[in-house]
Amino acid sequence: MEGPALSDANLTNSYFSSSFIGVNGFGSPAESKYTMMQRLFSICDSCSLTDPVNSSTSSLFSDFGALSISQRRKAPNPTASEFIPKGAPRMAAIAQSAVQAFPSPLFAHPGLGGSTAALAPGMSLSAGSSPLHSPKITPHTSPAPRRRSHTPNPANYMVPTTASDQGAHIIQKETVGGTTYFYTDNTPGPMAGMVFPTFHIYPPTAPHVAYMQPKANAPSFFMADELRQELIHRHLITMAQIDHSENPDVPSEVDSYHSLFPLEPLPPPNRMQKTSNFSYITSCYKAVNSKDDLPYCLRRIHGFRLVNTKCMMLVDMWKKIQHSNTVTLREVFTTKAFGDHSLVFSYDFHAGAETMFSRHFNDPAADSYFTKRKWGQHEPPPPRQHAGLLPESLIWAYIVQLSSALRTIHTAGLACRVMDPSKILITGKTRLRVNCAGVFDVLTFDNSQTNHLALMPQYQQADLVSLGKVVLALACNSLAGIQRENLQKAMELVSINYSSDLKNLILYLLTDQSRLRSVNDIMPMIGARFYTQLDASQMRNDVIEEDLAKEVQNGRLFRLLAKLGTINERPEFQKDPAWSETGDRYLLKLFRDHLFHQVTEAGMPWIDLSHIVSCLNKLDAGVPEKISLVSRDEKSVLVVTYSDLKRCFDSTFQELQAAAAGSL
Amino acid sequence: MEGPALSDANLTNSYFSSSFIGVNGFGSPAESKYTMMQRLFSICDSCSLTDPVNSSTSSLFSDFGALSISQRRKAPNPTASEFIPKGAPRMAAIAQSAVQAFPSPLFAHPGLGGSTAALAPGMSLSAGSSPLHSPKITPHTSPAPRRRSHTPNPANYMVPTTASDQGAHIIQKETVGGTTYFYTDNTPGPMAGMVFPTFHIYPPTAPHVAYMQPKANAPSFFMADELRQELIHRHLITMAQIDHSENPDVPSEVDSYHSLFPLEPLPPPNRMQKTSNFSYITSCYKAVNSKDDLPYCLRRIHGFRLVNTKCMMLVDMWKKIQHSNTVTLREVFTTKAFGDHSLVFSYDFHAGAETMFSRHFNDPAADSYFTKRKWGQHEPPPPRQHAGLLPESLIWAYIVQLSSALRTIHTAGLACRVMDPSKILITGKTRLRVNCAGVFDVLTFDNSQTNHLALMPQYQQADLVSLGKVVLALACNSLAGIQRENLQKAMELVSINYSSDLKNLILYLLTDQSRLRSVNDIMPMIGARFYTQLDASQMRNDVIEEDLAKEVQNGRLFRLLAKLGTINERPEFQKDPAWSETGDRYLLKLFRDHLFHQVTEAGMPWIDLSHIVSCLNKLDAGVPEKISLVSRDEKSVLVVTYSDLKRCFDSTFQELQAAAAGSL
Repeated sequence: MEGPALSDANLTNSYFSSSFIGVNGFGSPAESKYTMMQRLFSICDSCSLTDPVNSSTSSLFSDFGALSISQRRKAPNPTASEFIPKGAPRMAAIAQSAVQAFPSPLFAHPGLGGSTAALAPGMSLSAGSSPLHSPKITPHTSPAPRRRSHTPNPANYMVPTTASDQGAHIIQKETVGGTTYFYTDNTPGPMAGMVFPTFHIYPPTAPHVAYMQPKANAPSFFMADELRQELIHRHLITMAQIDHSENPDVPSEVDSYHSLFPLEPLPPPNRMQKTSNFSYITSCYKAVNSKDDLPYCLRRIHGFRLVNTKCMMLVDMWKKIQHSNTVTLREVFTTKAFGDHSLVFSYDFHAGAETMFSRHFNDPAADSYFTKRKWGQHEPPPPRQHAGLLPESLIWAYIVQLSSALRTIHTAGLACRVMDPSKILITGKTRLRVNCAGVFDVLTFDNSQTNHLALMPQYQQADLVSLGKVVLALACNSLAGIQRENLQKAMELVSINYSSDLKNLILYLLTDQSRLRSVNDIMPMIGARFYTQLDASQMRNDVIEEDLAKEVQNGRLFRLLAKLGTINERPEFQKDPAWSETGDRYLLKLFRDHLFHQVTEAGMPWIDLSHIVSCLNKLDAGVPEKISLVSRDEKSVLVVTYSDLKRCFDSTFQELQAAAAGSL
Repeated sequence: MEGPALSDANLTNSYFSSSFIGVNGFGSPAESKYTMMQRLFSICDSCSLTDPVNSSTSSLFSDFGALSISQRRKAPNPTASEFIPKGAPRMAAIAQSAVQAFPSPLFAHPGLGGSTAALAPGMSLSAGSSPLHSPKITPHTSPAPRRRSHTPNPANYMVPTTASDQGAHIIQKETVGGTTYFYTDNTPGPMAGMVFPTFHIYPPTAPHVAYMQPKANAPSFFMADELRQELIHRHLITMAQIDHSENPDVPSEVDSYHSLFPLEPLPPPNRMQKTSNFSYITSCYKAVNSKDDLPYCLRRIHGFRLVNTKCMMLVDMWKKIQHSNTVTLREVFTTKAFGDHSLVFSYDFHAGAETMFSRHFNDPAADSYFTKRKWGQHEPPPPRQHAGLLPESLIWAYIVQLSSALRTIHTAGLACRVMDPSKILITGKTRLRVNCAGVFDVLTFDNSQTNHLALMPQYQQADLVSLGKVVLALACNSLAGIQRENLQKAMELVSINYSSDLKNLILYLLTDQSRLRSVNDIMPMIGARFYTQLDASQMRNDVIEEDLAKEVQNGRLFRLLAKLGTINERPEFQKDPAWSETGDRYLLKLFRDHLFHQVTEAGMPWIDLSHIVSCLNKLDAGVPEKISLVSRDEKSVLVVTYSDLKRCFDSTFQELQAAAAGSL
């Protein structure tokens, strides 16, 4: 990767410096947001329909209909023809200085453009037999045009959406280089001198994200690069499967779920010891629900016969709990698919989550600070960060999230009952989710009780004690800290290493209170740390949004190129070996040359990703801009609009599709 | 779009049902996350270097180096050759059931695959003169192969990263269909029966996002589709430019900033009235800093001569404030570029932001509830939602954010001094940022003072009163509510329509207190609403993350296709018209046919985006899998590995690039 990396890096600063999207819209800051959105999204996303993950988006983009698209042009700025190598923004600055898009009463700069004249104010092209832009915008003699001089230069097409304009016929004419152009003067009154982008250049990262500094006392989060890794990791986990022939014990279907994938080692057959938490043998699978094709996490309780369905009333209460720090229970059912009577709890699947136990309490070495030190001997304690203890900010981030989950659960009249490090999931760096909600409610359901919520207040008190134990264990970085005999030593460790707020919170939760505890009582101890959490979460939002902004149109562009690939150079179609060389396909072949095979006047390749992106965007939008496509022998020139090309492209791809569908 | 939309929709559920990424990795849940990441990211992103927006990512991906890539194969599941139209997960389920990737001592199912035999346990291919997969995986006679039968079928390539394995030589052999294959048995001990994805299928949306319900009392946020619109809108705003010839008053450069774009109407020349807030005429521009090419917002104070630079000590304090609810001040400078002595404040630019004034107080009709109603006459008040008042949850979302900003500012020893609806920016649905920080500190700087922070406590008290006014105005949905003569009526409106917490908060902030107010004092009134805000923010994180996960690799795939496009069918290069038909380029041409021009046995087009994606990913990764590329006359078959193709691809593109660079 040495040589290529270097030259690729050079490329980064020049040709491939940009990419971007298929929107030709305009609007002024003075316009209402809604209007601008309307205009922006008049762009069509002809490809998005082919992508199921984006299918919900496609309806948004498909309303392309009867758009009237006008175009404007200004003469190129004679000083702007030199290539400016430094970054996109400046390039854009120069490119746009010669472009005018807004309807403007001041619209006329005949002196600027050398041999080409400017449009009269408020004009749009609706007729004209030769390409408006060809002398400057498209290559003279593709594939050997003067393309090199035009990257930072005036190809800006604006798309007013007033379809009714199309009927107007105030025709004006103008002669440029011997060719007469006819325009209709029917665009709305313009705003002076504002130019919106051609959308083949991405904006840079916003400075508030570009210069974001980590904060010492805030929970950390993934920055963009790490997040991408995490997302691919989650993808891997979500799509992982087992080979059923290797795992004969895993049924191929359980109720409406298929593709079961064990998330924990399967218990050996006839194993008698029960897991500590539920007093039953349990196992855990990722599985896909065939009703919605989404992945879920199934927790199976082995050998459990549900004798009464009254407990489903509690399950129904749990199903309504939606909270960013709980794992939502979706359904509970019994099954004989495992060869016994099993009860199965289906939860949302959070790919890549690990338990708090495995993240923080699975390393015997981490216990050493707590277990090795002799406490109460008035030795100066070692600084926390050297002792392997967790930063206090992390513990508070956890407290806020766990108390938030408990508060929602308690407010709903339920109790968590499984506030335990092995039942708390961590995703990413610090996001917690309380797992296995409702399991105990079903397993210990007492049919003899009349009021099944009678014991909830008592369970809620137990939840708060459990929360206190989790926090204490985190502070000691050892589960040994919550053993009864170690409590005093543990609290000593807390008071030496952490704030009094944290100590008070643990004391409040773990010592007997004269009145019932409430999760609300710990809010004052959290205090301003709420602000810290919220700030971190909002900063994280900003980071992910910026990252998404960079990718937001790439899927559409990729699908466009893939479609074009299926058309161009197809060896034969319907037994016609000349199919891809004739008719509409010939235009698309020449367009392909226009996209990829431009050369400089010296005959050298001219490679510019922004050219490819901007042409693809114009194709996708079907703008009325004309380009001249030159045959390979340079003997014929075809002048077509992008909207013609789009029509060819769509109908040709449909033809292929129809043939492919017919062969099924 | 009628016809095509329909057939596109059909396509959605079949061929184009998936897309995806170039990672061939594996790992087991038992492995440490780090190890898995290491493996995952041994994938190379050969294209990402060409994209400046992703350039920071590329270094992460470029460490491809000396990977040893093994491949495994199992015989196809004879029942799995039918196309399963329902969604990706089930398809994957079937596809994988015939695939084995993990080194496994149990690895042998000779009965399953008809004429092909399974690999012996723990084997990987390191030598072998003919393609392991060709009889089943690649077309017999491309471009007319039996491709149709193999979408849901066993092309799964796992990439162990132990480069040192390559040297081992425990060769075993096996004969399949008359061809002898040699394997080395040197892969590490396997995990039983787990199969990781081929990465050409995206996982579906996680259920916690797919079924996310809006919450009544939480601040609302953009869901994925709206967010995409918002991002494009921000892009538009960020890249907008003016035509300098239309705006001769806007200098082309100011200090290190260029491409100034007025964000507010320019004040007419010689206008004498001052803006209400700073007692100076001000104007506001978006501009690009040539030092970092990032967009900033410049606020110019007209006709201000800075006589002393001592005030820069306060500016330096402001520059350190980074908070998700403030607009960060980056620098302050003086300039004569506008033709006068101007002082310019440079802030982070938040594209698409509007002020709280324009969002909430710019509609005269909205005042009507407050101004028209007669208060104190014991009429039953109309329900709030019919009266045009804001929902209380929105007001609290604002309070939390504004108090968060104030708390950070006050903690830093500063005061906001511009807590006013015209100086609070809103982005998205509910995100606030306090703007114009530090302007008053500089404009009213008193050089005669010795302690320039002496007045801060007083200003901080004023900030809290201002906050109270903003909240009261929001509650009345009218700025009239904060006029002194209307205060009683306004408070009456608040107590009728909103909670007592809100009323108490306003009373606390607006009435004289016996002691100094502190922003910390309002935390108890906010109370559990912190949890609501945090929950909403975390849910929003989940939504954006899911959205990003869908797009995360599309840019790379697009760049790969664009590069391939510049190579394939190039009419001539270095005066060689046969360049694209000879040497390495010929292989790439046949690979292009393999990608795009497969046909069924009946000769009908076989169009499958997941095939295109998975082949491109293998190309990008350079896996050692072999494919047979068939010439168009079907007379010759070239057997090459993807790593050969990758070498051809990279060197050819470098050749083009070098030629393009030479022509500059």
